[in-house]
Amino acid sequence: MRPSGRTFNELRPVSIETGVNRYAEGSCLIKCGNTHVLCTASWDESVPPWMRGRGEGWVTAEYSMLPRATHTRGRRDTKNGPSGRTQEIQRLIGRSLRAVVDFKTLGERQIMIDCDVIQADGGTRCASITGGFVALREAVRWALKDGVIKNDPLTGSVAAISCGLYGGGPVADLDYDEDSNAQADANFVMTGDGGLVEVQATAEGDPFSEEQFQALFTLAKKGCQELTAKQNEV
Amino acid sequence: MRPSGRTFNELRPVSIETGVNRYAEGSCLIKCGNTHVLCTASWDESVPPWMRGRGEGWVTAEYSMLPRATHTRGRRDTKNGPSGRTQEIQRLIGRSLRAVVDFKTLGERQIMIDCDVIQADGGTRCASITGGFVALREAVRWALKDGVIKNDPLTGSVAAISCGLYGGGPVADLDYDEDSNAQADANFVMTGDGGLVEVQATAEGDPFSEEQFQALFTLAKKGCQELTAKQNEV
Amino acid sequence: MRPSGRTFNELRPVSIETGVNRYAEGSCLIKCGNTHVLCTASWDESVPPWMRGRGEGWVTAEYSMLPRATHTRGRRDTKNGPSGRTQEIQRLIGRSLRAVVDFKTLGERQIMIDCDVIQADGGTRCASITGGFVALREAVRWALKDGVIKNDPLTGSVAAISCGLYGGGPVADLDYDEDSNAQADANFVMTGDGGLVEVQATAEGDPFSEEQFQALFTLAKKGCQELTAKQNEV
Amino acid sequence: MRPSGRTFNELRPVSIETGVNRYAEGSCLIKCGNTHVLCTASWDESVPPWMRGRGEGWVTAEYSMLPRATHTRGRRDTKNGPSGRTQEIQRLIGRSLRAVVDFKTLGERQIMIDCDVIQADGGTRCASITGGFVALREAVRWALKDGVIKNDPLTGSVAAISCGLYGGGPVADLDYDEDSNAQADANFVMTGDGGLVEVQATAEGDPFSEEQFQALFTLAKKGCQELTAKQNEV
Amino acid sequence: MRPSGRTFNELRPVSIETGVNRYAEGSCLIKCGNTHVLCTASWDESVPPWMRGRGEGWVTAEYSMLPRATHTRGRRDTKNGPSGRTQEIQRLIGRSLRAVVDFKTLGERQIMIDCDVIQADGGTRCASITGGFVALREAVRWALKDGVIKNDPLTGSVAAISCGLYGGGPVADLDYDEDSNAQADANFVMTGDGGLVEVQATAEGDPFSEEQFQALFTLAKKGCQELTAKQNEV
Amino acid sequence: MRPSGRTFNELRPVSIETGVNRYAEGSCLIKCGNTHVLCTASWDESVPPWMRGRGEGWVTAEYSMLPRATHTRGRRDTKNGPSGRTQEIQRLIGRSLRAVVDFKTLGERQIMIDCDVIQADGGTRCASITGGFVALREAVRWALKDGVIKNDPLTGSVAAISCGLYGGGPVADLDYDEDSNAQADANFVMTGDGGLVEVQATAEGDPFSEEQFQALFTLAKKGCQELTAKQNEV
Repeated sequence: MRPSGRTFNELRPVSIETGVNRYAEGSCLIKCGNTHVLCTASWDESVPPWMRGRGEGWVTAEYSMLPRATHTRGRRDTKNGPSGRTQEIQRLIGRSLRAVVDFKTLGERQIMIDCDVIQADGGTRCASITGGFVALREAVRWALKDGVIKNDPLTGSVAAISCGLYGGGPVADLDYDEDSNAQADANFVMTGDGGLVEVQATAEGDPFSEEQFQALFTLAKKGCQELTAKQNEV
Repeated sequence: MRPSGRTFNELRPVSIETGVNRYAEGSCLIKCGNTHVLCTASWDESVPPWMRGRGEGWVTAEYSMLPRATHTRGRRDTKNGPSGRTQEIQRLIGRSLRAVVDFKTLGERQIMIDCDVIQADGGTRCASITGGFVALREAVRWALKDGVIKNDPLTGSVAAISCGLYGGGPVADLDYDEDSNAQADANFVMTGDGGLVEVQATAEGDPFSEEQFQALFTLAKKGCQELTAKQNEV
Repeated sequence: MRPSGRTFNELRPVSIETGVNRYAEGSCLIKCGNTHVLCTASWDESVPPWMRGRGEGWVTAEYSMLPRATHTRGRRDTKNGPSGRTQEIQRLIGRSLRAVVDFKTLGERQIMIDCDVIQADGGTRCASITGGFVALREAVRWALKDGVIKNDPLTGSVAAISCGLYGGGPVADLDYDEDSNAQADANFVMTGDGGLVEVQATAEGDPFSEEQFQALFTLAKKGCQELTAKQNEV
Repeated sequence: MRPSGRTFNELRPVSIETGVNRYAEGSCLIKCGNTHVLCTASWDESVPPWMRGRGEGWVTAEYSMLPRATHTRGRRDTKNGPSGRTQEIQRLIGRSLRAVVDFKTLGERQIMIDCDVIQADGGTRCASITGGFVALREAVRWALKDGVIKNDPLTGSVAAISCGLYGGGPVADLDYDEDSNAQADANFVMTGDGGLVEVQATAEGDPFSEEQFQALFTLAKKGCQELTAKQNEV
Repeated sequence: MRPSGRTFNELRPVSIETGVNRYAEGSCLIKCGNTHVLCTASWDESVPPWMRGRGEGWVTAEYSMLPRATHTRGRRDTKNGPSGRTQEIQRLIGRSLRAVVDFKTLGERQIMIDCDVIQADGGTRCASITGGFVALREAVRWALKDGVIKNDPLTGSVAAISCGLYGGGPVADLDYDEDSNAQADANFVMTGDGGLVEVQATAEGDPFSEEQFQALFTLAKKGCQELTAKQNEV
Repeated sequence: MRPSGRTFNELRPVSIETGVNRYAEGSCLIKCGNTHVLCTASWDESVPPWMRGRGEGWVTAEYSMLPRATHTRGRRDTKNGPSGRTQEIQRLIGRSLRAVVDFKTLGERQIMIDCDVIQADGGTRCASITGGFVALREAVRWALKDGVIKNDPLTGSVAAISCGLYGGGPVADLDYDEDSNAQADANFVMTGDGGLVEVQATAEGDPFSEEQFQALFTLAKKGCQELTAKQNEV
């Protein structure tokens, strides 16, 4: 029995609202249950120095949590830069989004995705990827409409879900209560047509078996399909 | 003529929504036109080390701007801690709120106010003070209701407004367009009963006259009264 | 009754000695009672990167306190850069001095003012502004004499004074004993011909009234006139 | 055809030499082809502050690469602490080793594993886990022999291997040439009895298919068995 | 021929003025020609954490140069703490002063020596040691007089001089012009009775011979005697 | 009697193995008893910005100790950059090596020497200089052989030894046991033909006499000759 009363493969209610920032070229507020992430896409007509002159673009991401996004107030990531956990997450978001972008078509420009967690109840990195893609797509649509670029650099869509072993069995879309008591925690990033972008599974205590891993995999495929459908509704 | 079409003493539309964060003891989202600030108050049953054993409490504040709160994306305040401007603002917010708190009545506990600017169109520090007070009051109400404290430590209310010399004359509640072209910029922090907490007036180019300063002062008094009324409606 | 025996509107003895550094283009040692600040002006024939190509100059300031300038030894501002308080002060000094400089006349060059507090007894930021202006003027005189520039970029003089509510009434030029017990503390930066450059008034405990503020203002005008006279004697 | 001439499922020659540091409680030098990692285990009779009083121990890891471990010299991880990549790797090593330790049996003490890459030719994080376990086991043997602890806290062994899609097909134990041209890169951390500790698979360009992922998984199981055998030979 | 017209073994005029800081327990302004260093000694009735409970005291030093102490303005040592050169110098000053202090007699208290270079013309580290000792002795005298300690912890005096190879021959007390063109540069720290505390000789270009080194040594002995005499005049 | 049983002027066994890193242009592992240092020389066809356009090259060094190189585990030099001690040592290594390089002959290129202490038993900075020179010479030989440069920029060889006062008398090549109980500690850096590059002698407690210093000097000359012979055997 899950704390939220959900069935083992049931996602939390998802809503995605676009156009929530008047300055950003693309933006959305994604809510996965009580996890709320504000995603903005900022268009930059230049690339980082190490990429100049190649005729190719770049997509990168930053992730941050407001201090009171959680039950107890956390410290801001200042002094000494973002924490190891934060850096790990923003590298994951960036890699995931880049998997569906053709950089030659984008041309020498960069799109920066900012994912700021307003309220956290588990699954913030997955919500950031799912919402970050929507913000990215909004920015691309803006650029196509305004004639900034001529061809769509997106080669597909991308979404992410966390699954885990909780109470002895596999469950989809862990919330905080489940996440903090899971025997294993896995994040799957998949494209809209079922391609794999990233698989990360971690034993929290004892190792898990191959069978258990495959059960999580099965849940993830179904979950990512549902999230892709939500993205396409927008 | 003001860019927004407002009269010289007209504030932007203000809305204050409370209860916007499920974990914080107090919270509100304040919108002053296109300036949106999320304020949370976090209750902490301990005080900083340098205050222990005095039987008195403390209120402090942090301020931050999301990177895409502005027209062009800014950098996050990481590496080397918050910038000088950020520190100056959060010190101002903290001082302003402490002016209406009796620390003996509060007892040895700290309330931390976080002001995160979601969207910026001028006047973010003033909106943070006005909204921060509402979040603080919500937290105090929660504590009184839950029996955490017995007596109300608040001795009044506090609100803030920016006024400036724009196009040769004094105007109230500057937006970004005005702020970036003002000859002088002043912030006034006042209590609900007209007491002065902080006055900061700065010439942006040429010095200004005593008469001009007094005109700004007059605007500020009227503006703070309106903001106090909005706070009391909540 | 003031601890120093001064009357309510009496400044501490002020002395300004110029030419105290053999390398700096301008320099002075200003003493306001026991507050001693060494001010140097360094001429730089280039401007910061963000200002290049505009044909305009810049004036900026740094402020620091020697560790044993105070009753108890303080830490040096190292690791993580200058403290929030230090940054706030040096931003104020820079703004104040820039108010009396015509940057087109100065041309693309920068003057850096360093204010190092040798001994502190209250009012260090005001002494830094008053002395910093003298160092700046010395540097300008050197440049005019040496033919580095042809026209004087200074449009006036600038001086600063702190006033406050102490023992129930307004007093001018607070020393440390007064400053640490003041109900309100205000800094006024004014030009030699009475223009206002900066007004900063802060309640230290309870809010103060408009009347009290105006009394401080009156004291400040008289005090700045006296300081301007001292500057002109040099 | 692999650049090294290996068959698709052939590991590089592995050697593990223990006792290479005269001070460390456990140590080994692991060589996986041209990847050489020096692993030391340092026994500490205290735990971090946040763990005190629970009667449980801890294992943590640090990872670093000598600047000239690679083809071109890299910078040392100084100023602002270890890079995001370094932190991500040392978190992985720590988690992997903790999966085979019973912290109640260990008692309130910490074992710190240092993995310093002397020479890098791909697969350094996997070699660090495989070698780190050997250093950990040496330290445990020392502690048992010296009577520092009475019971063995190790619940099994752990080893790690990288596999990837190279030249269209799956290959085991990527070297640098393969790693920098792989379509996908996966790290598997497994216990000696086949339990899963961590699975990380990443698309480097286009997404990969479920079939491809399963092929990498199959290679990893065989590879980890071979590495476990090597560990047991020591 | 030396740029200053001095003979090869002639020191610059030295003056030492004590009591220059009204708060410090000991202080002096030492001038060696155009090199001016403000030295303060701050008495602290506690020792660093790592020394507590041993019944012994400590003496340590910090060194800093005002930005415009030199021909061209330098940056302040902020962000990332003091530079390597600064740390090297302050470690030298601390070691030198500790050589003449009996820490058991001092008891568990620390004396902090701050050496702030107001104007630099070569030899700042040596002037800091020579002046730092005077400030230290002033603080000890204060403590003896006030009854803070009963017995004098000083076991002697210490002074320092730089010598070097300039224009082919050995010269004493290098000024900046000489220092920046010397073939070798040596600092000698000696006690008042001729004991050696520190010898540091460095080839700036080609190596130097043993004979040349011994010539510098001879100059240093004479120079330190003269500086000791100056210290004793105070 | 020395703890190791050596006679007063006997060095520890020295071995120098070259070619220990497959990527570095020059490398060696130097062992002085239980002190082991890995030295690599990295060839860089550019010089630091401040040296460009002069037609001259540069040699610089970095020094680091693996955390478990010592009896108890030390912290890595991260956060805030290398420690003062580390910076002091790497500046010494760089200066020492530059004393035997003709920078005009080298041309505008830089050689970076990395000295990483694998195991420490006293004398690590001296071993780094002696081994660093061998790595540098290997890199120069590689460059001459490959035709990268035409003429040998080395003007000699350089080696270093520590001597000290232990148990009342002078001893050569201190190990850790001696170093931590020495009354004085001295490092001598000398060229193969007897020139002096650096002399650093420090009293650890009481000052030492001129006679004692000269005895250390005599030991150092003999020791450096032996080390030079070892370098030439390679």
